[in-house]
Amino acid sequence: MKISQEIRNLIESGTPAHLVTLNRDGSPQLTLVWIGLDGDDIVAGHLPENRKVKNIRRDPRVAISLQANTKSAMGLTEYAVLYGEAQIEEGGAPELLQRLAEVYIGSGVKFPPMDNPPSGFITRIRVKRVEGVGPWTGRSV
Amino acid sequence: MKISQEIRNLIESGTPAHLVTLNRDGSPQLTLVWIGLDGDDIVAGHLPENRKVKNIRRDPRVAISLQANTKSAMGLTEYAVLYGEAQIEEGGAPELLQRLAEVYIGSGVKFPPMDNPPSGFITRIRVKRVEGVGPWTGRSV
Repeated sequence: MKISQEIRNLIESGTPAHLVTLNRDGSPQLTLVWIGLDGDDIVAGHLPENRKVKNIRRDPRVAISLQANTKSAMGLTEYAVLYGEAQIEEGGAPELLQRLAEVYIGSGVKFPPMDNPPSGFITRIRVKRVEGVGPWTGRSV
Repeated sequence: MKISQEIRNLIESGTPAHLVTLNRDGSPQLTLVWIGLDGDDIVAGHLPENRKVKNIRRDPRVAISLQANTKSAMGLTEYAVLYGEAQIEEGGAPELLQRLAEVYIGSGVKFPPMDNPPSGFITRIRVKRVEGVGPWTGRSV
């Protein structure tokens, strides 16, 4: 689906993404990751072939939550949840992480910090549904 | 398991909890909730019998992430993930929500805002494992 301007702004604000993948036994795995946009896809980079990469290869269903720094009229923290399907691409992680580090850490930072990092993996997520509390859903409490 | 003082401090800092439950088809459901401690259990309150209450009744496996307002040496946002098993208790939600509102909104607030709220449901989570990045795991990056 098309990513709205409100969600784009939230992603580009540098708030970290809480990413859920599914383990082999069906239990949830939850980690904080940096995300960015590539058109209407969400992308994240990983240097090692970590648990979330393996999980997504086996089951593409993921969820991401993003905590805004705004509150609803009732005083609740606003947030967005993006549900979608992910796929793993090989390579390209250092270049993506460098781009995201400028958002999440600050301009001019070198990331990954080491020379000659591995080419790693990219998670690409096609968003199917948006939930949460805030202007992106029209749900205000 | 016993909840460490570092995790207690993080929970009581009022950072909202990203709670994952599992839908009937095994896909993840993700929402922001208020949580508190009852001894070493994590507790959350719900006025309606919502999707997460129904999900936990069917499959008790949950995960919670909490975003800290601190950064690691490398500049990454620190966070904790609590994995555990949840159960639903009937009643007691308004009293718990009132206690949590004092942490998450501020002292003196009336919550739920309506008179005569329903007695609702409490989610009680026994924590089995702690992950993340920060002093609670000894993992620093």
